[in-house]
Amino acid sequence: MIRKVVILSTGDELTTGRVVDTNSAYIADRLYALGLDVVAILKVGDQKERLLWALQHGLALGDLVIGTGGLGPTADDLTTAMVAEFFDRRLIMDEEVAAALKRRFESRGLPWTENNLKQALFPEGAEIVPNPVGTAPGFRVETAEKKNLIWLSGVPREMEAMMQETVLPWTARSSGGGEQVSAATFKIHGLTESRLDDILRPILLPPEARLSFRAHYPDLTLRLTVWGGQEREKKFSELAAGIRELTGSHIYGEGDVTLEEIVGALLQEKGWTLALAESLTGGYIGHRITRIPGSSAYFKSSIVSYSNDAKIHFLGVKQATLEQHGAVSQETAIEMAEGALREAGADIALSATGIAGPSGGSAEKPVGTVWTAIARRDRSEARLSRFSGDRERVILGASQAALNFLRVTLLSL
Amino acid sequence: MIRKVVILSTGDELTTGRVVDTNSAYIADRLYALGLDVVAILKVGDQKERLLWALQHGLALGDLVIGTGGLGPTADDLTTAMVAEFFDRRLIMDEEVAAALKRRFESRGLPWTENNLKQALFPEGAEIVPNPVGTAPGFRVETAEKKNLIWLSGVPREMEAMMQETVLPWTARSSGGGEQVSAATFKIHGLTESRLDDILRPILLPPEARLSFRAHYPDLTLRLTVWGGQEREKKFSELAAGIRELTGSHIYGEGDVTLEEIVGALLQEKGWTLALAESLTGGYIGHRITRIPGSSAYFKSSIVSYSNDAKIHFLGVKQATLEQHGAVSQETAIEMAEGALREAGADIALSATGIAGPSGGSAEKPVGTVWTAIARRDRSEARLSRFSGDRERVILGASQAALNFLRVTLLSL
Repeated sequence: MIRKVVILSTGDELTTGRVVDTNSAYIADRLYALGLDVVAILKVGDQKERLLWALQHGLALGDLVIGTGGLGPTADDLTTAMVAEFFDRRLIMDEEVAAALKRRFESRGLPWTENNLKQALFPEGAEIVPNPVGTAPGFRVETAEKKNLIWLSGVPREMEAMMQETVLPWTARSSGGGEQVSAATFKIHGLTESRLDDILRPILLPPEARLSFRAHYPDLTLRLTVWGGQEREKKFSELAAGIRELTGSHIYGEGDVTLEEIVGALLQEKGWTLALAESLTGGYIGHRITRIPGSSAYFKSSIVSYSNDAKIHFLGVKQATLEQHGAVSQETAIEMAEGALREAGADIALSATGIAGPSGGSAEKPVGTVWTAIARRDRSEARLSRFSGDRERVILGASQAALNFLRVTLLSL
Repeated sequence: MIRKVVILSTGDELTTGRVVDTNSAYIADRLYALGLDVVAILKVGDQKERLLWALQHGLALGDLVIGTGGLGPTADDLTTAMVAEFFDRRLIMDEEVAAALKRRFESRGLPWTENNLKQALFPEGAEIVPNPVGTAPGFRVETAEKKNLIWLSGVPREMEAMMQETVLPWTARSSGGGEQVSAATFKIHGLTESRLDDILRPILLPPEARLSFRAHYPDLTLRLTVWGGQEREKKFSELAAGIRELTGSHIYGEGDVTLEEIVGALLQEKGWTLALAESLTGGYIGHRITRIPGSSAYFKSSIVSYSNDAKIHFLGVKQATLEQHGAVSQETAIEMAEGALREAGADIALSATGIAGPSGGSAEKPVGTVWTAIARRDRSEARLSRFSGDRERVILGASQAALNFLRVTLLSL
């Protein structure tokens, strides 16, 4: 029964950093969904002794090893020969695969070269994994210890097709339908990773449950996973309820959602339109809103008024307000939002003004000081936030705080 | 002398496929440029026995092991304790790091929790690797066999800063031992990786030289590295000259520069101010311009006019132009740029309008169709581009094309 899997990603392009390996993440994600445990992901370049090292250690750690890469026709494609040597098996030409290869070249009018036949060679006793979208098929070999090695094309599109059509159905069967898993993802706002950890301390995790955190500023994601058959659903519900109770309004969403998706859905639900007035965020809030497909249904405009002139000209901020309170102030933030609402003819408007740094700060208004404001037809309100870190971090944090302010306001109406 | 390196990437988010690991590719790329050999990249989840396995095998294979992840304050951050156990060293609190952590929390007005002190613990005898942009510093430990282990934050931005400031200079010194390296980085616009590969085919690389590509859309980076003492500088100059000749105007910069930095420097040189009028890019061009510190000196405003109303109201685009030619047209792009120039009182204005998708395309104007325009006091011009891929890719590509159009225009004046 398959429980533990090791993924091997091979190719010089990985160990020289030319390419970011997305194959292993894809495979790991699919296996995780089947309830399997990915023990390790090993990546080595196209050199025989390193490939052998990875194969040997992969088979020592896992019940199943899934490898990618090195199945092509060129001299640096070493996989099949290396695997045959490792298991001490002969290489056998599969006549059906060879004929299919030749037909493929003919039908595309490509010149046939004999090195292509290399892709029809397989270790003796291997089962072929068809490649529905490319030339090189993969294979599966079962070892004397009843472990399995599956090797797939390293081209992401081909690997994915082979996984879908052959490997995942086979793996699901061989892992006994897979262990059952319940999982939930919570998106968190306004807490650091350590503060969240602290808040969750009262949660008592049974051994078959796991909490994992992922901080990708300004996003913080918490994932709860519970394995096992009996009582799993009940335990999962209890743990999830505990998390919801302890983190409360810091959870802005469940599942793989972003703040801009939630805000977009709330606007659409209400049939409202949004206008923005940005200063320190420089257009980043507009970018976040508009990267959601269909956002043109509710998004009208963002006025990125970096200079005081632009705040006055486009948004009608008063010269006197800028002089008395400064560009980074509650008063300016509110006049920006009210100007955006009025000029764009929107139902709700959001503004952000602040000091992104590294220069421009003062004792009274240090770098990281941010005012956000929301204007509606009947009322406006503003909030003060402080962010630390470099310019990028202040901009990201300000955009997150502004969108969350908008989310909370939309929910309260 | 350091020759062989093993990279460890750790975290449950990697072995469950929740996150694509870009850290190991970044580190591999930089080490490759120093002439080092990355023997393997090992990834395991946050479990002690697996972390120990990876550490043990990493140190067996490499002279240097660089690990990332698990340095945070939470319960699933096991790295430091695991390393101390592996080397049988005590954990020592670094008072300076502890004080800096407390100051950081204070200055942000965040509640201090004791678990944060975990980030100030290091294996006895370790050298601290400062983290200039985050809370958790890294460390370097030298083993009895004169091998080295360096551990860094798993947050890409933090890892990159730690690599740049501390790890790469140290590694260059520790691997050099006399071997000299000449390296150049070319930033490329308007070519795919395979097209660039094709264009560079006439370059004959001697064995002591390497060309590496790194595609991170919309950026394409080409790096030339030449090792060895004698004739190195001469060979390097010849190869660099060959690359410059073959790629020509596709090179927008040399070194680790971004298009927005180059555009900013050109504007500052001329003493000009910039205004933007964005549609499909939704504020992303404004964000790119303003993430450069000091951009307020030349950036006035961006009008993100997503709706037709906003194009008319804020930029003075004519209703008739929108009706006759559509929002995505040469005419609208030019009126947007001219409106931004006029309303903002800037010296030069850039606009972008297009179809980001997934919907909104037609046979005549498919998804990915983008018009960019530049207006100056005396003349305006527009360009048509076509991008393929999803919404995100079209937005990124459009912002890159627009900024390059601005760069080329500024250079020609």
